[in-house]
Amino acid sequence: MTGLTIRRAMRGDVPAIVAMLADDPLGAGREDPADTQTYHAAYDRVVADPGQHLVVAERDGTVVGTLQLTVIPGLSRRGATRTIIEAVRVADGERGSGLGTELVTWAVEESRRLGATLVQLTSDASRTDARRFYERLGFEASHVGFKLRLDG
Amino acid sequence: MTGLTIRRAMRGDVPAIVAMLADDPLGAGREDPADTQTYHAAYDRVVADPGQHLVVAERDGTVVGTLQLTVIPGLSRRGATRTIIEAVRVADGERGSGLGTELVTWAVEESRRLGATLVQLTSDASRTDARRFYERLGFEASHVGFKLRLDG
Repeated sequence: MTGLTIRRAMRGDVPAIVAMLADDPLGAGREDPADTQTYHAAYDRVVADPGQHLVVAERDGTVVGTLQLTVIPGLSRRGATRTIIEAVRVADGERGSGLGTELVTWAVEESRRLGATLVQLTSDASRTDARRFYERLGFEASHVGFKLRLDG
Repeated sequence: MTGLTIRRAMRGDVPAIVAMLADDPLGAGREDPADTQTYHAAYDRVVADPGQHLVVAERDGTVVGTLQLTVIPGLSRRGATRTIIEAVRVADGERGSGLGTELVTWAVEESRRLGATLVQLTSDASRTDARRFYERLGFEASHVGFKLRLDG
């Protein structure tokens, strides 16, 4: 794992992030990388929100991974702050390199640094490898994740 | 459903919210209602964050339900903003009254108003009634929810 940096995503990283979101069995049908204006507007909303931490992993000057960490303060669990990891993606050429582990481990450490006592995420049930991956990192598959789409 | 109001939680609502969080098969072992200082500090963090919408349902002047809605802007799904519903609780005397449905329906409508195109939540797999409840409201149990505790 040489030359790897995990850093805040900049506006110029948006095309690389979107390319990774689209290069995915589920993302392929959901993304439209040509619509750069929409993604840049979304980026601006993300960086305007101090609870959002959108990062990229860069190796030797190339963006090879991304994830978004969200900080959620709350009353439950004795006033616990939790974080949610979303949109974890690793570039095609980096799969199997351990980069996914590096990214999620970074997110867990950053969560701790931000004062969170719980990290959570959901994974589409069709991503059969994900369960093994997250359990190996100490996560417990204790919950059912529900989604309701409002756009269709 | 007479006299029901869903409104932003105020600082004076914190004890009633915490009582509902604790009066729950899972919450009983996780909350400490006597530690008011901790919960008030958590409340202050929640209201300082514009992405958090902590609400209570009030019937005839009594707090009978609560939930927290979190707005998460992001790049994935063509720059979709999503919301997450957390900590849905209904007071003991109101169970079976349809208040849970009112609360979640309010959260879905509020999500739409806030520009979200996806609403998500997770439910502990041991809450066997929850699946039927959320599916009846249109949610799809498509995901596995993972949690990692950092405090123990």
